[in-house]
Parts: sequence; structure tokens; C-alpha cells
Amino acid sequence: MNAQPVNIPSASDIADASRRIRTVTRRTPVLQVTAGELDIPVPVTLKMEFLQHTGSFKVRGASNVLALLRTTDRGVPAAGVCCASGGNHGAAVAWAAREAGLRATVFVPDFAPTAKTAIIESLGARLRRVDGFYADALVASQDHARRVGAFHVDAFDDPLTVAGQGTLGLELADQVPEGRPVLVGCGGGGLYAGTALALAGRNRVIAVEPSSAPSLTAALEEGEPVDVEVGGIAVDSLGARRAGRIATAVGLSLGMKTLSVPDEAIAAARTLLWQRLRIVAEPGGATALAAVLVHSEHFPDGATVVISGANTDLPASVG
Amino acid sequence: MNAQPVNIPSASDIADASRRIRTVTRRTPVLQVTAGELDIPVPVTLKMEFLQHTGSFKVRGASNVLALLRTTDRGVPAAGVCCASGGNHGAAVAWAAREAGLRATVFVPDFAPTAKTAIIESLGARLRRVDGFYADALVASQDHARRVGAFHVDAFDDPLTVAGQGTLGLELADQVPEGRPVLVGCGGGGLYAGTALALAGRNRVIAVEPSSAPSLTAALEEGEPVDVEVGGIAVDSLGARRAGRIATAVGLSLGMKTLSVPDEAIAAARTLLWQRLRIVAEPGGATALAAVLVHSEHFPDGATVVISGANTDLPASVG
Repeated sequence: MNAQPVNIPSASDIADASRRIRTVTRRTPVLQVTAGELDIPVPVTLKMEFLQHTGSFKVRGASNVLALLRTTDRGVPAAGVCCASGGNHGAAVAWAAREAGLRATVFVPDFAPTAKTAIIESLGARLRRVDGFYADALVASQDHARRVGAFHVDAFDDPLTVAGQGTLGLELADQVPEGRPVLVGCGGGGLYAGTALALAGRNRVIAVEPSSAPSLTAALEEGEPVDVEVGGIAVDSLGARRAGRIATAVGLSLGMKTLSVPDEAIAAARTLLWQRLRIVAEPGGATALAAVLVHSEHFPDGATVVISGANTDLPASVG
Repeated sequence: MNAQPVNIPSASDIADASRRIRTVTRRTPVLQVTAGELDIPVPVTLKMEFLQHTGSFKVRGASNVLALLRTTDRGVPAAGVCCASGGNHGAAVAWAAREAGLRATVFVPDFAPTAKTAIIESLGARLRRVDGFYADALVASQDHARRVGAFHVDAFDDPLTVAGQGTLGLELADQVPEGRPVLVGCGGGGLYAGTALALAGRNRVIAVEPSSAPSLTAALEEGEPVDVEVGGIAVDSLGARRAGRIATAVGLSLGMKTLSVPDEAIAAARTLLWQRLRIVAEPGGATALAAVLVHSEHFPDGATVVISGANTDLPASVG
């Protein structure tokens, strides 16, 4: 099934995406944090992507896909657009569809948290709950697209989605010095692929996965995407059962090794963000920072850490 | 009692403070927000000062005072430093004292929220609860200073404190265009005075007060600081019973008119910050934004809004 060639976006695809989505997405700020402030071994620069519209980077890719859809010969189907999502991509598609005046239907696993489904519905999208995981919602969205003629907006394995996520990397090229690696949380690998392509030759990008949802780790070991078991506290944002073909190809071509973090480190990173910096991140949003807690030997001079995903209630440790 | 002249910091005092505290404070980012995103009448630029160490701008002034204290002939008293605070200035003094290796004692009104007292104690300061309001804690801190020889760090009516808060204005001079006004929440008026001095001739600074704690409004009407009744939801951060002499003199000299906001607008601004931007602000931290909800006719082209004070639990409206 993977015989067809993988379509990897080029640097100019990412630059085009950046121009295309500039008016509907936000350039998010960065914050310098010393090692002492967070009781971590190395200093970090936080890319504050949780301040993006709908609380995550996903709106970059969704906006890029929808902007191009409107300019194709086929145009936009009357049935609008649809997608599958643990919640953040769904909120992003709902946002981009509203901006573009399109109908949207979002398929989510039934465990998707209220903090996410409430945003999706408040943006006017139709919400459909599906038994199971992201992979099951994906089947439902693709079925829906075939049945009613809606356009399925892929969460991470479409070159336009990846090019959109890559615009975060272009911003970092302006915001952080060359050299220090960039850590991103990884589910299907769209953000990893986009930023790695945007920063190639400038900053190494490392995908950080929950050890409870190791889809890209397994894909890089096997040389192609394979199904893995997924679970754990970040499953609603990083719970893709199978990594994207694009992310796998990019990771293999760059020789990238993922970093794996236990749920306890993700929870600790989340608590640190709130207690020390008054930043609220969902588990998936704190996963990249968790790698600083348990793998700092990989970046002794520090790292840039993307914090994306704020659609959650507060950690219990507030106070 | 107001016969002695008011000592207003100069532009060079603020520039000196900026150099002095650069290594111990953070340059906080700004965020552009459209009118549509927050359902407000005008666009705003948010100065994200809740990302400052200890969650508020107060660490600027406290760091300036303590940095200078260490270079005076008298040096630092063995009893260390003390202060009175609704909580945020206390956390700032505790932070600055820890950075400088000094002892600190913080007097707070007994209603100071746990989110604030927990930070003060976690930074190693001694916490003393006092019956009543900020004004009562102030008497206790000044008594303590006289009794044991500690150095009292004033929350808002010392030229060094005001010069330190003014460094936020110097940052804004780099971050926002000339012209549009800057809105700041106001208790004793230290942030107002510092930023108004730093931005004089460039951007008008407007002090926003809860209508339930109108100390600067009353001072400007009377021509000098007078006692007012204080209460309401922001009393733990903006609950000074009497505005500072410095803020009063600055406000009178610039012909500034305060804006007054009801508690309901403060609560609505706080909810908007969380629901739309995933920013957690305490009521005092959202007070400046409340003026955009109810007084936007004063700045038809928009405003810069300082969001400072994140030491709180989440609004009840999370979801």
C-alpha cells in the first residue's frame, strides 16, 4: 500500500504556505527560560504556540489546505470539509472553515476531552463521536468524505498540511539562533516533518513521543509506518496509531532519532509550566518539555521547545 | 503630611533601572489580537507581563530597589528586607531577595489568596498575615522595619520602585508603535507612574481602576492622595486604600483621567482571556482589558493592554 511515492513539501511550498496563511494565523512569541527557573538541567527557549488560534499549531496546516482548496478548479464541495482528530486538528479545521465560510464536520474519538469538543462546537462545526481511537475517527471521516462528497482535511500526512505546520519552523528561523536543537511533541508527525524541512541545515528538529504512543519511533525502526498500541495521558493529542508517511520519510532521510518520554515526565513538565510560568498546557503540549527533564544529555547547551496544545483543564497541582 | 516634595524618577533613573535589573528580569513578549478574536470593539496588543518572574511586573521594582540597596554605604541590614503586599509585590520581594541572598519578611492581608502566599513561602520568605487590608499590612511592615532594623521595600510610592516598573514602558517603546494608548491596571499607581514617565510624549498611559477600589481616581479629583473604601474582586492586587504620591503627581502633571470598570467587566475580561487565548489572569491582571469592554470609545484605534498578575486559580468558566 505504500508503493506510491511520498510527496514531500519543498522549501518553497513552506514559504508559499507562510504567505498564504499570514493573515489568518498568528506569529507566536518565544520566551527565554533559564535552567534555574524550571529546575531543569539546561536553558530553554519556549515557542509559545499554545497562543496560536484554537490553542495549537494545527491551525497552520488546516488554513493552508483550505486556502488552496478554494483556488482549485474543482472548488469547494457543497458538503464542505471534514476531518478526524483527537480534538486539536478538529478545532483548527473548524476555525479555518469558519474563516473561509465553509461547512465542517469533525470526527473525534469518544474520549476527546470537553475542553476540545466545546471549541469545535463553538466554532460552528458539526461534531461526530466515534468509538475507539484517532485511527477509527479517521476511517469515519474518510467514509463520510466518500459518501457525501466532502473534502477530507488530513491531520498530518498531506503535503499541504505539513507545509502549513512548517511555517512554525520559518518563524523560529527568525526567533532563535542557529545550532541548538528544536524539540516538538509528535503524534502523526506533521509538525515534526514541517519544522524539520523548514529548519534543515540550521537547527536539528527532534520528535518527542510519549512512550505510550510511539508511532514515529516504530516507523523509523521498521523503515515504514506500522501500527502501534497507543494510550497514556497524551493520547488525545499524540495518539496516532500509525505515523505519517511524510514524517517517516523525513525522519529517515535526516537520520533523526526520536526521544521517548514516560507519562510521569509529561505530567511533571505540565506542572512545572503552570507552577513556575503560569502556562497551561495539555499533556501533548508539555511532551516536548518532558524530554528536557529526562534526556537533556542530548542537548547540553539547551534547546528550543515548542509548547503547543492548551485545550485542557488545569493540572490538579494548581496553587 | 504631604508637605515634603515628591521625588519623581527621571528618564535616566528608568534607563538605569533597566540596565540594573536586566539579568534578573524577563523581557516579556507582546501579542497582537484582532477585535474579532475577543469579540471586542477594537484591536489590542497584549503585553504579556504575566510571564514575568512570579507572575507580575512587581519584580521589576523590587529588583531595582534591592540592587541599589546592596551598593549603598549602609549596606543591607542583618534583618534583611520586608514589605507589605496583597501578594504580588510580596512574591516579587521574595524573589528578588532570594536572588540577592537576603532574608525577606512579607506582610499580607489575611484574605491574600493561597496562590500568592504559596509562592511567597516557596521562595523562602517569612509570611505574616495581618487582619484587614493592604493599608493594615503596610503599617505592620513599617513597624517591623523600625523594630528590627529591616529595610522596608515600598510597593508603589518609592522612586526606585516606580523606576523599576517603568522598565516595562521602555520595553513597550521597542514593541509597539507610537500613538495608541497603553492601559494598565492600577492600585497604588506604581506601574502607571513608571510607564507614563517612560512613555511620555510617545504613548499616553491610562490607569484603569476597579470602581470598587478607586484610589487614584479620588486622588486626582482631590489633588492629593486620600483614603477611599476598597473591595471587590481585584482587591488582592489593586486594593491600595490610598494612591501613591508619585502616581498622583504624575497623573496630575499629565492631565490623565482614570478609567473605572465594574467587577462584572473584570470577570468578563478574565473569562475572555481564558476561553479565547488560554491565558490565565487574576482579576487585577484582567482589569486593564476590562476597560476595552466598557470604554473603547476612548481609544477607537485600539490600545496596548498590560496583562499582569497570574497568581490565581482558573476562572470557573473553564471548558
